[in-house]
Amino acid sequence: MSNRAPVLIAGKWQESTGSKQFTATNPGTLESLSPAYPISDWSECDRALSAAYDAFQQMRNVSANTIADFLDAFAQQIDSSNAELTEIAHAETALPAKPRLSEVELPRTSGQLRQAATAARSGSWAMPTIDSKANIRSCYEGIGPVAVFGPNNFPFAFGSVSGGDFAAAIAAGNPVIGKANTSHPGTTRKFAELALHAVQEVGLPAATVQLIYRLDHQDGAKLVSDHRIAAIGYTGSRRAGLALKTAADAAGKPIYLELSSVNPVVMMPGALEERGADLVTEFVGSVLMGSGQFCTNPGLIVAIESSATESFIAGVASKFQEAASGTLLSPAVQTSLTAAIETLTKAGAKLLCGGQSVPGRCSVSNTLLRVTGFQFIADPETFQTEAFGNASLVVVAKNLGEAAKVLASLEGNLTGCIYSARNGSDDADYGRLADILGQRVGRLLNDKMPTGVAVSSAMNHGGPYPATGHPGFTAVGIPASMLRFGKLTCYDNVRSQRLPALLRDKNPTGKTWRLVDLNWTTDDLATS
Amino acid sequence: MSNRAPVLIAGKWQESTGSKQFTATNPGTLESLSPAYPISDWSECDRALSAAYDAFQQMRNVSANTIADFLDAFAQQIDSSNAELTEIAHAETALPAKPRLSEVELPRTSGQLRQAATAARSGSWAMPTIDSKANIRSCYEGIGPVAVFGPNNFPFAFGSVSGGDFAAAIAAGNPVIGKANTSHPGTTRKFAELALHAVQEVGLPAATVQLIYRLDHQDGAKLVSDHRIAAIGYTGSRRAGLALKTAADAAGKPIYLELSSVNPVVMMPGALEERGADLVTEFVGSVLMGSGQFCTNPGLIVAIESSATESFIAGVASKFQEAASGTLLSPAVQTSLTAAIETLTKAGAKLLCGGQSVPGRCSVSNTLLRVTGFQFIADPETFQTEAFGNASLVVVAKNLGEAAKVLASLEGNLTGCIYSARNGSDDADYGRLADILGQRVGRLLNDKMPTGVAVSSAMNHGGPYPATGHPGFTAVGIPASMLRFGKLTCYDNVRSQRLPALLRDKNPTGKTWRLVDLNWTTDDLATS
Repeated sequence: MSNRAPVLIAGKWQESTGSKQFTATNPGTLESLSPAYPISDWSECDRALSAAYDAFQQMRNVSANTIADFLDAFAQQIDSSNAELTEIAHAETALPAKPRLSEVELPRTSGQLRQAATAARSGSWAMPTIDSKANIRSCYEGIGPVAVFGPNNFPFAFGSVSGGDFAAAIAAGNPVIGKANTSHPGTTRKFAELALHAVQEVGLPAATVQLIYRLDHQDGAKLVSDHRIAAIGYTGSRRAGLALKTAADAAGKPIYLELSSVNPVVMMPGALEERGADLVTEFVGSVLMGSGQFCTNPGLIVAIESSATESFIAGVASKFQEAASGTLLSPAVQTSLTAAIETLTKAGAKLLCGGQSVPGRCSVSNTLLRVTGFQFIADPETFQTEAFGNASLVVVAKNLGEAAKVLASLEGNLTGCIYSARNGSDDADYGRLADILGQRVGRLLNDKMPTGVAVSSAMNHGGPYPATGHPGFTAVGIPASMLRFGKLTCYDNVRSQRLPALLRDKNPTGKTWRLVDLNWTTDDLATS
Repeated sequence: MSNRAPVLIAGKWQESTGSKQFTATNPGTLESLSPAYPISDWSECDRALSAAYDAFQQMRNVSANTIADFLDAFAQQIDSSNAELTEIAHAETALPAKPRLSEVELPRTSGQLRQAATAARSGSWAMPTIDSKANIRSCYEGIGPVAVFGPNNFPFAFGSVSGGDFAAAIAAGNPVIGKANTSHPGTTRKFAELALHAVQEVGLPAATVQLIYRLDHQDGAKLVSDHRIAAIGYTGSRRAGLALKTAADAAGKPIYLELSSVNPVVMMPGALEERGADLVTEFVGSVLMGSGQFCTNPGLIVAIESSATESFIAGVASKFQEAASGTLLSPAVQTSLTAAIETLTKAGAKLLCGGQSVPGRCSVSNTLLRVTGFQFIADPETFQTEAFGNASLVVVAKNLGEAAKVLASLEGNLTGCIYSARNGSDDADYGRLADILGQRVGRLLNDKMPTGVAVSSAMNHGGPYPATGHPGFTAVGIPASMLRFGKLTCYDNVRSQRLPALLRDKNPTGKTWRLVDLNWTTDDLATS
C-alpha cells in the first residue's frame, strides 16, 4: 500500500483510506504504469466534502483579487513545469509531446487560467445589476463547493484540477473537489501538487483544491447529491454522465455535462463541386487530429448523391488508408471504438476502410463508413452512435429534401458545420439546412471544421441535450462559463455598507461592467 | 358535454376529446362554478405539442418586433377587459376585486407584458456577444415550445397564459402551451381568448398560445418530457412540481420550478427594542395580505429571547386575533393549511392563536405558532413545513449562536429578511447572520417584508433548491427571466449575411447592448 499515490484532502497529501486501487496503462506500449492509485472510500469523500464546505465559508470572505492571484500563480507553475507535465501526460495518454501537449494544450491551459484570473478581478462576469430607483441590486456569487469530473482526451485543458471547469469554478469563488480521469491520474496529481503550492503561496483556504482519483459508482452518485456539494462539472461518456445526472437531479444540484456528440458536417453540392479536393484535406486533417479524440470531432458527414460526393468519399478513404493510425487514449477507448464500428456495420453501414485493431498499442485503423440517407432516417438513433476516435460515418442523401430529413432526425450536438460554395450556388438552399441544424447544435460553423474550440468570450461549447444537460450554458469561454458556478443573489433595500463591493454605488474597480437601470456602464452610480 | 368549456388548440377553440371533467369552486361561498372544464386526454396533448412545434418553426423567422407587437396588443386587451377579468377571478379565487385584482395585479400583469415587449424589441436580453478578431459570435435564441403551469395564488400576474413565465417565454420567441391552474380555469380561459385575438391581430402563428385546463398526472409527466417540448415553467406545490421535475430531468428538459418557501425573517434584538410595535404592524400587514397566500409570505420569524421579543409575539398574536381571517383560494388550500398546522403542533409547536376552520367559506383563523430554537434545530425539516396561508411560526432562540444555528439548518428559500436597529446596535452581529442566510435565499432583504416582488431588472425571484430547481435563474424581472427560455447559439465563421440581425456588424436597433470584445456597447462593429 505504501507505494500508492496519496490523495489530496484538506490541504494535505495523505494515504487514502480506500482499500482498492488501480493503475493506468501506457496506451503506446500497453504497459502498466506505476504507482498505483487508490479508489477512495466514502469516508474519504466525506472528509473532502466537509473540508470543501468549510473552505467555501472562508472563500466567501476572500477578495476576488486573491482568487485571481491564485489562478495566475497556478498558471505560472504550470508553465514552469511544462517538461514534466508533458512527460507524464505523454506516457499516460500517448498524445504527442510536441506540438500537442507541450506547445498547444499546455499554453492553452495556463492561458485559460489567466483569462479566468482577469475575469475574477474585473467582476464583470457576475453581471452586477442595479435598479437604482427601487434600490434592488443583484449579482452572481459563488455557488458553493464544485465537484469536477475531467475527461480522458484533454489531460491539461479539461483536467479536473487544471481545465476549463476548474478555472471557471474557482474564478467564481468556489472550492473544487477534482476527480481525476483514471486514464491519466499521474498528470492530474502533478497539477494538484502545483495548485496546492499556489494555494499556499497566496493564502487561500487549504481545501480550495482537493483531489481523488476514482470512486465506486455508488459513491460517485452519493458525492454529487451530497448536501455539501453545490454543483458538478462533468465531461466524459454519456452513460457515466447520465448516471451522475440522475443522482444530482434528484437532489436538486445543477450538473453541467458535456457528453457525446457526433458533430455533423454538411457538405453542400456546390462546395464539393468547387473545392472537393481541398475539403478532403481539411476534413481528414480534422478527423485524424488527436486520433479523432475530440469532443467536437466531425463524426458524421452529410452529402448529396453526385460524382463530386463520390470523389470526396474516395479521396477521404484513400487518405485514411495512407495515414498511419494514431494511438488511442486507453484500452477502454479502443474497446468502445471497436464496439461502435460494429454497431454501425451491423445496422447496415458499409465499411469503406479501417475497422482493424492495431497490435502492440491502443489503436484502430482509420475508419470510414457509409450509409444512405434512407438508411439513416430509418434508424437515426443507431446511426448516431458516437464512434469516439478516428472514425467517421458518411451519409449520402438522395437529394436536398432527404438531407434535410437526416438533419431533422439528429439529436442535440455540440457543433454542426455547413460547407457551401463560395460562388453562391448553394445559397438558395443554405437557409433551409441551417435552420434545421442550428436548432440542434450549440455552435454552427461555416466552411470550418469544428475541432478548434477557441477560449473566446463568444464561444459556446455546449448544445441541446444529450450533448449537454442544458442548452443555455457553455463549458468553454470566459466569462460565460463561470455563470454555471454562480448563484444569483438579490439585495433588496440592503444598507449600502452591507452590500458586496460589486453592488455599491461606487464601481469597485472603475472598470466593472454593471447593468444599471437597463444600461451597461462602468460608471459609479450617480448619488442623488 | 356540450356545456363544457372548450380547449384552445392550434388556434381553434374546440370541444375537448377528454372524457373527464372538473368544476371550480367559489371559495367564498363553497358553491360549484359553471361551466365544467375538461381534463385533456393524451391525444389532445399530442395535438397541442405538434401545433406548438410547428408554430416554433415559424416563429424562428418572425421578427422580434412582431412578437413585441403581440405582447403590447395583449396587454392592451387585458387593460380593456379589467372589469370582466376581475369579476371572473374574484368568483374563482375570492381575492378582493379592489384593490388587489383590479388595481394591483392586473396593471402589474399588463405592465409586465409591456416590459417583455420592450425587451424583445431591444434584443439586449439575448446578450449578443462578439469576438471580432476570431469572428465568433453568439446570442440566446428561442429554446422551443414551453409548457407553463401556473399557480393558484396570482391568477393574473403568474397565470399560465398571462403571467411572468408566459411573458418571458413568448418574448424570447417561443410558443406556450398553458396548463391552467384548476382553481381558476375561467380566468385563464378569458386570458387565452384575449391572447388569441392579439395573436390574430399581429399575425403570429395560430398556435403561439394554446390552453388546456387539467391533465392526469401521468399525462403531465409525458407532456414535460415530450421531444416537442423544450422547457417548462412551473409554479405551485412542491409535490406536484417535483414529480414533473423527475420526468423533465430524465428527458434532459430544463424545468424552472418555483416551489415552497417559508421566507425566514430575522428580528434582531436591537430592532425589536427600538421599534417593536412598528414591526408588529409591518409583519402582520405582510403576513395577512392576500390571506398569506404569497410565495414570499413570511412564514418563519427568528428572534432571540428577550422581553422585546415577548412583546412582539404578544402584539402579533393580538392583531391576528383582532383581524378577520381572509378567504383562502380553494378547499385544497384550506385542507393543506390545516394539515400543516397540525404537523407543526404535533411536532411540538405551541399554538398561540388561530388554527380553526371558519365555516361557510374556505378560511382558517389567523394562526401563530411558536417553538424554541432548540426544538427547531432538533427537527428542522418538520418545522420548515410550509403552512401556505395566514399562518406563521416564531422561533425563539436562546441567543445569537442558537439563532445562527437555526438559520444554518434552513433549506433553500426565495427570500430572507433581516431587521436590525437603526442605531447600529445590531451591526456587530449582522454579518454573521447575513452570511448564513444569504447562502440559503435568492433575495436578501433589510428592514423590509418580502411580499412585494417588484418586476425589476435587478429582482431575483428564485433561490436555492428546493425553493426552485436552479439557483442561477429568476422567475420575475425582465430581461433576466427570459434567459430561462433561451438556447445559447454560437456562430463560428458564419458568413455575415447569414447571421441573425443581432450579431451582424451593424447594431440592428442602434440601441441593442452587445458584448463586443469584452466591452458592452451599442455601437456598430468597426469595419476593418
